[in-house]
Amino acid sequence: MPVQFDPGPAVTELVRRTEHLIQDVVLPIELAHQGSAHDASEDVRRQLQDAAREAKVFAPHVDTEFGGLGLDMRDRAPVFEAAGYSLFGPLALNCAAPDEGNMHLLEKIATSQQKERFLRPLAAGDVRSCFAMTEPVPGAGSDPSALATTAQRTSAGWLLNGRKWFITGAHNAGFAIVMARTSGEPGSRGGATMFLVDAGAPGFQHVRNIDTLDESMFGGHSELALDNIEVGHDAILGELDRGFEYAQVRLGPARTTHCMRWLGTARRAADLAAERAATRQAFGGRLGDLGMVQQLLADNEIDIEASRTLILKTCWDLDTGAPAGHITSITKTFVAEAVNRVVDRALQICGALGVSGDAALSRLYREVRPFRIYDGPSETHRWSIGRRIVRRALTRLEARP
Amino acid sequence: MPVQFDPGPAVTELVRRTEHLIQDVVLPIELAHQGSAHDASEDVRRQLQDAAREAKVFAPHVDTEFGGLGLDMRDRAPVFEAAGYSLFGPLALNCAAPDEGNMHLLEKIATSQQKERFLRPLAAGDVRSCFAMTEPVPGAGSDPSALATTAQRTSAGWLLNGRKWFITGAHNAGFAIVMARTSGEPGSRGGATMFLVDAGAPGFQHVRNIDTLDESMFGGHSELALDNIEVGHDAILGELDRGFEYAQVRLGPARTTHCMRWLGTARRAADLAAERAATRQAFGGRLGDLGMVQQLLADNEIDIEASRTLILKTCWDLDTGAPAGHITSITKTFVAEAVNRVVDRALQICGALGVSGDAALSRLYREVRPFRIYDGPSETHRWSIGRRIVRRALTRLEARP
Amino acid sequence: MPVQFDPGPAVTELVRRTEHLIQDVVLPIELAHQGSAHDASEDVRRQLQDAAREAKVFAPHVDTEFGGLGLDMRDRAPVFEAAGYSLFGPLALNCAAPDEGNMHLLEKIATSQQKERFLRPLAAGDVRSCFAMTEPVPGAGSDPSALATTAQRTSAGWLLNGRKWFITGAHNAGFAIVMARTSGEPGSRGGATMFLVDAGAPGFQHVRNIDTLDESMFGGHSELALDNIEVGHDAILGELDRGFEYAQVRLGPARTTHCMRWLGTARRAADLAAERAATRQAFGGRLGDLGMVQQLLADNEIDIEASRTLILKTCWDLDTGAPAGHITSITKTFVAEAVNRVVDRALQICGALGVSGDAALSRLYREVRPFRIYDGPSETHRWSIGRRIVRRALTRLEARP
Amino acid sequence: MPVQFDPGPAVTELVRRTEHLIQDVVLPIELAHQGSAHDASEDVRRQLQDAAREAKVFAPHVDTEFGGLGLDMRDRAPVFEAAGYSLFGPLALNCAAPDEGNMHLLEKIATSQQKERFLRPLAAGDVRSCFAMTEPVPGAGSDPSALATTAQRTSAGWLLNGRKWFITGAHNAGFAIVMARTSGEPGSRGGATMFLVDAGAPGFQHVRNIDTLDESMFGGHSELALDNIEVGHDAILGELDRGFEYAQVRLGPARTTHCMRWLGTARRAADLAAERAATRQAFGGRLGDLGMVQQLLADNEIDIEASRTLILKTCWDLDTGAPAGHITSITKTFVAEAVNRVVDRALQICGALGVSGDAALSRLYREVRPFRIYDGPSETHRWSIGRRIVRRALTRLEARP
Repeated sequence: MPVQFDPGPAVTELVRRTEHLIQDVVLPIELAHQGSAHDASEDVRRQLQDAAREAKVFAPHVDTEFGGLGLDMRDRAPVFEAAGYSLFGPLALNCAAPDEGNMHLLEKIATSQQKERFLRPLAAGDVRSCFAMTEPVPGAGSDPSALATTAQRTSAGWLLNGRKWFITGAHNAGFAIVMARTSGEPGSRGGATMFLVDAGAPGFQHVRNIDTLDESMFGGHSELALDNIEVGHDAILGELDRGFEYAQVRLGPARTTHCMRWLGTARRAADLAAERAATRQAFGGRLGDLGMVQQLLADNEIDIEASRTLILKTCWDLDTGAPAGHITSITKTFVAEAVNRVVDRALQICGALGVSGDAALSRLYREVRPFRIYDGPSETHRWSIGRRIVRRALTRLEARP
Repeated sequence: MPVQFDPGPAVTELVRRTEHLIQDVVLPIELAHQGSAHDASEDVRRQLQDAAREAKVFAPHVDTEFGGLGLDMRDRAPVFEAAGYSLFGPLALNCAAPDEGNMHLLEKIATSQQKERFLRPLAAGDVRSCFAMTEPVPGAGSDPSALATTAQRTSAGWLLNGRKWFITGAHNAGFAIVMARTSGEPGSRGGATMFLVDAGAPGFQHVRNIDTLDESMFGGHSELALDNIEVGHDAILGELDRGFEYAQVRLGPARTTHCMRWLGTARRAADLAAERAATRQAFGGRLGDLGMVQQLLADNEIDIEASRTLILKTCWDLDTGAPAGHITSITKTFVAEAVNRVVDRALQICGALGVSGDAALSRLYREVRPFRIYDGPSETHRWSIGRRIVRRALTRLEARP
Repeated sequence: MPVQFDPGPAVTELVRRTEHLIQDVVLPIELAHQGSAHDASEDVRRQLQDAAREAKVFAPHVDTEFGGLGLDMRDRAPVFEAAGYSLFGPLALNCAAPDEGNMHLLEKIATSQQKERFLRPLAAGDVRSCFAMTEPVPGAGSDPSALATTAQRTSAGWLLNGRKWFITGAHNAGFAIVMARTSGEPGSRGGATMFLVDAGAPGFQHVRNIDTLDESMFGGHSELALDNIEVGHDAILGELDRGFEYAQVRLGPARTTHCMRWLGTARRAADLAAERAATRQAFGGRLGDLGMVQQLLADNEIDIEASRTLILKTCWDLDTGAPAGHITSITKTFVAEAVNRVVDRALQICGALGVSGDAALSRLYREVRPFRIYDGPSETHRWSIGRRIVRRALTRLEARP
Repeated sequence: MPVQFDPGPAVTELVRRTEHLIQDVVLPIELAHQGSAHDASEDVRRQLQDAAREAKVFAPHVDTEFGGLGLDMRDRAPVFEAAGYSLFGPLALNCAAPDEGNMHLLEKIATSQQKERFLRPLAAGDVRSCFAMTEPVPGAGSDPSALATTAQRTSAGWLLNGRKWFITGAHNAGFAIVMARTSGEPGSRGGATMFLVDAGAPGFQHVRNIDTLDESMFGGHSELALDNIEVGHDAILGELDRGFEYAQVRLGPARTTHCMRWLGTARRAADLAAERAATRQAFGGRLGDLGMVQQLLADNEIDIEASRTLILKTCWDLDTGAPAGHITSITKTFVAEAVNRVVDRALQICGALGVSGDAALSRLYREVRPFRIYDGPSETHRWSIGRRIVRRALTRLEARP
């Protein structure tokens, strides 16, 4: 069986349905809110998700046992890209971050009871969730070993204390997956454990919505205070002290699905610019007939095509269980930067219109920038890629006669 | 007298006073408004300008006859850069766009009466102004020959009709310099004329503030309708049909002073990032000890230093009356792109903090982007630079034996 | 059948054998000639090809009927990449340009007699060939419609006249595929026809070897004079006046196999740099522990991985008969530039050693540069990509209600 | 006295004379040798220098006491740029590396006797010299503290032992300035001392000319063995143990004069490309009318202009005694990379002609590449720039109330 790129008719049809949903339902709603979730209520989310259910494209990544379509990573790629064409598309399909990554993690690690209690309503769109790992300075950020939030053993279970920061989707989330230190000290790696915490638990405080460049994520990015939250042993997700390891289980696919969604955004920006170039007159001709504009358009296409194929290769590795830390770092770094380049070029082609709110580009420009930072800044990924290359070179050299 | 870069003690002292004003007065006010002029009233402008007057740094570019400090372009450069360190700094010194460029144009071209009526109050900070050239599609944009606004001769003077778009500072401006076609057709170059129009004139309509990525300019960017505005012959600025030529008189220096101000912004971003790198701990050391961070910091410094020297060279050419169209295009293109690179790297160094409103960087990131489009997109400048190079090469080849 | 990237065990084994051949036989010979074919005789070619035959990796792309392994494009990709690890590797496998592209073209278009006479000995490595399309100024280059070489009908067949330039492999080639104008005028597209011309034909003159930056191609790049060469009707390859069309048949796959081979070269450069970084001490540590070096290494890996996946996608399209002009342009442009970036970074990491002949990098640096020009400069590809994007945007807009 | 960029009539006239010399005498000789000094004899050097003497542009940087024109750094800038227009131009003016830097060092530090013995014949062009600092791995390279060559005290003076590598101009040089360790161990900084060593001294062995990408430097780049060379105390240049410090005295200006010369090379490449763009027809028009070509031309002009102004600023700092380590690193890094970009774009514009030896570009492409490595690779400079920025940020933060 040779290399092949055709996702097959079923997925192709799913993509087509998603594209129609985005064009007919999601984009109009997004544009009405200027791409910002700030003033978009839960009603908007329900409206979007109802439409996705009706179009039979809801929860494509979720196991059929929990009401989803059960797609593997490779099949998700074109569907998520189609969803990402609108900033609100992933929410409509219930495959937006951080919920999508949390569903993945729960599918992999949660007990049956935990799945019933947390995964089922999440997969159904009844609640949203958040993933509470990042902390304010000097806590866990790019360097997870700085984790400062603690879980102390009590007679009845565990007592959580700490402060979390930039927790996406936390506002009005139903529950959180909280990463807390169960051994070692900040700075040492030690042991971290994940806890499932109901957002209504006493001591779970939503401190504030952080004002950010991007505004399209439902629930925003929040600062949380965890103040003597009591949880039972059944709140532990997976096993004690394996939190850092599970974070990788979550992050590899989560980074890749991020890439899929943002690639859709990049494609939209490229389409807007191409349409502008095809119709706007300038200097006695069509804007799109000018060489420098053709170059911007071509570079967008190159970036998009390279991103798409890299994503598929990464999905293949993830689906087949190949070690994927290296390739997910490569793909995340490339795609995050490519997406930013594409949107930047698209905005440039559209000129003053591009920086105005009259086109969507100024919004897209704001939304994609943080992706070069979220889920590991490019520098952190390059550092880990670089270190692996050096290790491999040493292995190679040692193997030589 | 050899090449020399020292601006002398008087300008150095002026820069020092400006820096103090920015740190002590302007930045706190800017931060209180999160860098947006949207909700900043005229009172804020007065407060800022009073402080600048007190610091004796007000209107540094204006002829002493009209109350300014009479600096030439070279001496403006470090002062404007110091002012640009805050988004509200140029407003404080009354050297913000578009007023500063308008003052320059009026000094050069206006009659004595026009100067008394329009320049004096503008230079004093009593009113703001705007420059109404750009038009909505398919009118004048990067390609000025598309000018569609018309001025028709009447018995009493002229009748102006048209629509203007992206007119910076138009909201609550006291008057506008309106570019209108007085001969030829859109698409032909023909003749354009500049008219001085009171904002209170019947038919001068402020249609809307355009929502834009940038928000720091007082008066924003507006759409205007010019609906049968009657003006007298004395409204003509300079001579009939020489508007396109005057636009170049305005644009060469105006582009260069833009560069000065935005260079200040870039320096601030670089400083914020350097301070973060100097203090933030990560991976068992200081962020600023990591090679990739040092590279970002170094590239910022390189971009800033190259921008500053290019600006000075351009000022020298403008001050000495050398043909400056080529060098102003070169400098505008380089500096606009360099400033964007610097702010982008600074934001990257600051990570999640950088995309949040907790630091100023996410605001700066939004503010600098349009500079690659305003005052001629980079592509238009590269086109005109490229054409000149080809012409010069032809001349060189023809001169060869 | 979902997307999949595994080439299967047979191809994997073929790659392994190729890698061994390259390490054990080809690289030592290449290094002995410092990567230059200038002083490498036909004996060297025979020695290399004999070793490849023995390793059972000879002519992997050729139909089994003509003694090859019959691999489709997807399966060629990893084999050609492995061959390209040495500058002499493609020659060893008899899959170097221009022979490999010529074999492809002959397989597709030649008559049975032509195949026996030209393809069989070429596939067997008995002769080399060349593809004579490009002409000196003002003839056919990036713009094929400028074709100036003519074929005039005679009673007995055709009379060829013209001058060709940069004809790779022409020196000591056994035959040439000559592109000549059979209708229309230079500047008009008109009709071109391909002729199979024996290098010994009267009037076929090898004018000179052109001195070029690259030196690793056997037969170099030559200037040819075609002076009243008489050929029969059976010299026509395919049909009359369809030469431009056949050139595309040749170029799509030929560009892509170029990418495969040069990707191997890039990987070698990256490996050399990684090994240097892993072992060289500097500033009290290992070179490869410095952040800026890690970044160079990581960017190499990203470029290589993106190139490889883009190539596979292009192969898939070519193998399945999808319209591939767009994707081959995208891939050629990206890979040519990526390969140059990789070699440049590798050389930088190796410092003075890199610019010396003591490492292979200075040779590789010279060899890869022309790939951004040969087979269509990046600008020509971007122009054609850009035009297609504009056309598609127009189609999309017209289809909208 | 305000900022000013006019070098004055005397220097302008000197530049004009240099340009004529380059066009009329130097370029023809360079082209006859295809830009390579490999087969250029000492006669060629004499011929070039005689012409420069006749044109009264010889040794512009040398003190008048030693027969030069006594230009300061600012005045050298345009003259050296004009000389660098040809690869052999700096040799003609006797301002090529490494002689020019050695003259500077001798002027600053040598005793009167040393000046008479070494500087005077060097300045007169009677001999060439070299600067023997760099060593093969694991010795002194980017990291000077690894210095392994030793000078041991004897009763009569010093005994030098070690191995040097990449010593520019060493072949047939009259003398060498040798850096040797006089205290401390490799890896520690310790103390280094500079020794003036006659190339005829017993034990001074020229091991080989290193084959390198660049070939235009007279005397090439050599490997030297220093085998028990005996020198007296009068061989010490400056004071004992201050060698590292003197290396900086040499390197600041030497890096900057490198920038001047290579800028001339870049300008020549840009001119060649512009002339090609102005005359070559393609796609029914002039090559230089295509937008992507205009962009390449414009970016060349931007890089050249920014390089030139940065160089002047650096000269100003050096001439006025301002601390110049930071600015020389900034300028060296920017100019080295800009020069490479310019030559690369020029070659791309010229297409196949550019990679052939029929134009000079393929030679220039090879010559400029090492400049990003010689005199400190870009990474080392960025590292030192970055560290200074962090230190300054800390100082700033500590000064805040």
